[in-house]
Amino acid sequence: MGNETLKVIPLGGLGEFGMNCMAIQWKDDIIVIDAGLMFPEDDLLGVDIVVPDITYLLENRDKVRGIILTHGHEDHIGGLPRILSQLNVPVYGTEFTLTYVEGKLEEHKLLDDADLIEMLPGENFVLGPFKISPIRVTHSLVDCVALAIRTPVGTIVHTGDFKIDLSSPDGKPFDLHSFAELGKEGVLLLLQDSTNCDRPGYTPGELAVKPRLDEIFARTEKRLFFSCFSSSIHRIKLAMELAHKHNRKVALIGRSMDNSTEIAMDLGYIDPPQGLLIHSGQIKDLPPEQVCVLISGTQGEPMSALSRAAVDNHKHARIEPGDTVIFSSRVIPGNEKPIYNVIDHLYRRKAKVIHDDGKSGLIHVSGHASQEELRLMINLLRPKFFVPVHGDYRHLTQHVEIAVGTGIPEKAMLIEDGEVLELTGTSIEKTGKVASGRILIDSGSTADVVEDIIIRDRRHLSEAGLVMAIITIDKMTGKQAGPPEIVTRGFAVNEEGIMSDARNIIGRTLEESSAEEKRDWILIKEKIRADLKRYIQKNTQRRPMIMPVILEI
Amino acid sequence: MGNETLKVIPLGGLGEFGMNCMAIQWKDDIIVIDAGLMFPEDDLLGVDIVVPDITYLLENRDKVRGIILTHGHEDHIGGLPRILSQLNVPVYGTEFTLTYVEGKLEEHKLLDDADLIEMLPGENFVLGPFKISPIRVTHSLVDCVALAIRTPVGTIVHTGDFKIDLSSPDGKPFDLHSFAELGKEGVLLLLQDSTNCDRPGYTPGELAVKPRLDEIFARTEKRLFFSCFSSSIHRIKLAMELAHKHNRKVALIGRSMDNSTEIAMDLGYIDPPQGLLIHSGQIKDLPPEQVCVLISGTQGEPMSALSRAAVDNHKHARIEPGDTVIFSSRVIPGNEKPIYNVIDHLYRRKAKVIHDDGKSGLIHVSGHASQEELRLMINLLRPKFFVPVHGDYRHLTQHVEIAVGTGIPEKAMLIEDGEVLELTGTSIEKTGKVASGRILIDSGSTADVVEDIIIRDRRHLSEAGLVMAIITIDKMTGKQAGPPEIVTRGFAVNEEGIMSDARNIIGRTLEESSAEEKRDWILIKEKIRADLKRYIQKNTQRRPMIMPVILEI
Repeated sequence: MGNETLKVIPLGGLGEFGMNCMAIQWKDDIIVIDAGLMFPEDDLLGVDIVVPDITYLLENRDKVRGIILTHGHEDHIGGLPRILSQLNVPVYGTEFTLTYVEGKLEEHKLLDDADLIEMLPGENFVLGPFKISPIRVTHSLVDCVALAIRTPVGTIVHTGDFKIDLSSPDGKPFDLHSFAELGKEGVLLLLQDSTNCDRPGYTPGELAVKPRLDEIFARTEKRLFFSCFSSSIHRIKLAMELAHKHNRKVALIGRSMDNSTEIAMDLGYIDPPQGLLIHSGQIKDLPPEQVCVLISGTQGEPMSALSRAAVDNHKHARIEPGDTVIFSSRVIPGNEKPIYNVIDHLYRRKAKVIHDDGKSGLIHVSGHASQEELRLMINLLRPKFFVPVHGDYRHLTQHVEIAVGTGIPEKAMLIEDGEVLELTGTSIEKTGKVASGRILIDSGSTADVVEDIIIRDRRHLSEAGLVMAIITIDKMTGKQAGPPEIVTRGFAVNEEGIMSDARNIIGRTLEESSAEEKRDWILIKEKIRADLKRYIQKNTQRRPMIMPVILEI
Repeated sequence: MGNETLKVIPLGGLGEFGMNCMAIQWKDDIIVIDAGLMFPEDDLLGVDIVVPDITYLLENRDKVRGIILTHGHEDHIGGLPRILSQLNVPVYGTEFTLTYVEGKLEEHKLLDDADLIEMLPGENFVLGPFKISPIRVTHSLVDCVALAIRTPVGTIVHTGDFKIDLSSPDGKPFDLHSFAELGKEGVLLLLQDSTNCDRPGYTPGELAVKPRLDEIFARTEKRLFFSCFSSSIHRIKLAMELAHKHNRKVALIGRSMDNSTEIAMDLGYIDPPQGLLIHSGQIKDLPPEQVCVLISGTQGEPMSALSRAAVDNHKHARIEPGDTVIFSSRVIPGNEKPIYNVIDHLYRRKAKVIHDDGKSGLIHVSGHASQEELRLMINLLRPKFFVPVHGDYRHLTQHVEIAVGTGIPEKAMLIEDGEVLELTGTSIEKTGKVASGRILIDSGSTADVVEDIIIRDRRHLSEAGLVMAIITIDKMTGKQAGPPEIVTRGFAVNEEGIMSDARNIIGRTLEESSAEEKRDWILIKEKIRADLKRYIQKNTQRRPMIMPVILEI
């Protein structure tokens, strides 16, 4: 295709959940939508976070006009520290989103150099050839927007994360009218959130959990521990209202819960009545029936306040028999074991545990649009073309089917990270690929990229441990200066003979090698490695990492 | 309590799912019910299986009269190889169960010395002071029994795993009458399966999946891949019937699927019509609409046939666009990621995937009794005392509540592994504890016990890798024979200076140590370790395992 096309290039989040990031390019101008992170799967040993490979943006660094954030969840903003440390461009976000971003950049000492620009829903701004309109949507977080981007070939709408909550607890409704107007005006391409595209019907609004939670607050006799995602501002607000109604004081426990609540209170999203909040040190001074503890740790995170409370390891949060613990959250797949461990510990302490097991009533709702909401959005916007975002391959597939099923878009396409889509006012086409992938980051420092080889080594070490053979060679004679030293970690053998046999094998391998081979340390190490490996596997049925080290002395 | 008591001592399965094992003791006679294994959680790195600690049985080895198996699932028989290698006592089981056990013992070369004794449902046998009646129950596997054990103080009933399937596909019904008679006769203690005690209502029978699967077979146009647990003999039989009905030939793919089906055919549980089964090499010779492939790998196991087929890595099982893949199974918690990975790969190959996502109709049923069945059993048996078995702490708690709620047992008690329960004809009491716990086994060899320290080392290595410092000391001078060698694995630093700094730190630590300290290698290694650790953590924010090695030459 020619030069007069608009390019849409997903760099993350299309083909996986998390690390959402997408570039939109017209000639020499690029804007980026979101810069998220992903939490690693279990087999990425020692990796703390995963962020998208932005090689494409770095190669085109002069063209990047800015990063526009749809909302403040980690999978949309968590990659910012690393990206900004490589590519310092202006960042646009709503007030609440930028407050989260500030904290994050501060931690990485990037805040002073950052150019954060607040955007307001309903107020347009221009970046190069793009006219951008943030449009208010509803979600499990507050101050979230979709983006309408007017480009030279037509209007693109990116929904961000959303559901259509018809009674948003913050009184800031989903902006149906703006979407309807865009639909009238004409939309070239809709990029829509796929997270819940496998759920029929409508996602309940945030307030749908109120009746059941009200019941639980009403009938709870002793202390009430209420746990939810710390970013669930709506839920925290509701828990405070219910605590107030049922004559309980509220203590906040857990760093993330504290932090989120403070931001929400500063920005006016939560406004608890005077005297409702108490310091966690005061919990013990109040009768149990007058206490509600908002506590972080719904996913059984080992160091979270709730996990520690569950094993009597938290100074202020002690679980007593008869206390009630509510998990107002979902189980993120993969976290079942740690969560159920925490629940078991709570049971052992004779606490009543209420979690979202399908039998506890409506105590949690999703923040993402179900099928009917996705169809409603397509009906409102009437896009010519459709591309699903945010999801595994199977979600993207199902979402394409849903869009096609509405009969509206002329064409719905599935693309994955790194694929380049080119659009004119009348056509859409996959035209190529750019570098894309996952960057693994250790220990939260943005510079600590973990290479694949490191992960492979860790995996090997984790499965079977290590056998190290240290061979000393006399510089003068070229012979062993002493018997080889064998050291192991994460590996042990019960039989006495195996280690001395291993030493003999090393000696034999050295003896049987020619003088020329002996001078080639790489070769001789490889020979020793192979011989030891064979012997150890045969005699122990295990496959530790074998590391010969040769020292010339 | 005195000597005239019956002891019930759970060694596994009470406080966790898996490794079911329970000792029943009267004076100098012990019988053991089941000898299961458990699959390790992710953080038990490199551990293949987990089995119960049987120290108590080994300390009382002269008293153990035999092991009685309720059925052939791994969590009931998988610990046998290790137990028999330490304590070779007779093993009692039904025909089908023993066939599984034989294969397992053969693998471990233990079959020749094993004393396997077949028991028949309805036929009593005597072991010391115990009269044992195996009673037929229904479950997801075939040939399963509960055990009624008549003891000097009264009758104990252990349900094994069961559900009350009122139309068992093998024509061998749940033996309601025997349980009713026991109830009339009087039952002292009921030990009942807790697995599904959190599910209201009744568990559907095995045949309940037939209508929906029939529909799927009827409407499938191309190849049909049918995956289920390889021990689900009922399900395999049903899949073969439906394949026959819908004019498809059946190929079996996967070692466990092959093996299970062969046993079931040998014992007459499955009797496919002549010509139904084809060799997997013939799949390609038949039109797609005439093929049904029974394939193992419902849990996304990396080396399973289905996982390999999903990435075009299986010789005979190729997934073509339009093929249908049914997962007639549940997602075992913790396996979500690998299963959804496989499903995503299948979607990429344009296969239709039908799995138990709550929207696919009834394509799988559980093998365990739900609440009404548990209550029915309690009503039939009218036990004086009740103790739940098979479950996490929260299941045992809920199950006690269910039993109490029926109003029948005088007393329901919760005990966990290692706790000793003593009974007379009129009393039940927790009286002490015996050694119990989990033994971690590497690589499937029964001798390869993994110590905690090994797991801790592997975990450390897996999170941050390894830094090894090799220091050579000249025997004559007591000084370093050369600069220290630093080797890393699973750990890397980007900055050049760090490694040379680390070498200098080692040199300084040695220099600053007194002659006396230098002679104490353990001390000097610890000093070097501490100094290096501090330096590396400060400069990399990471915590690799630090291993100093000192060589005297």
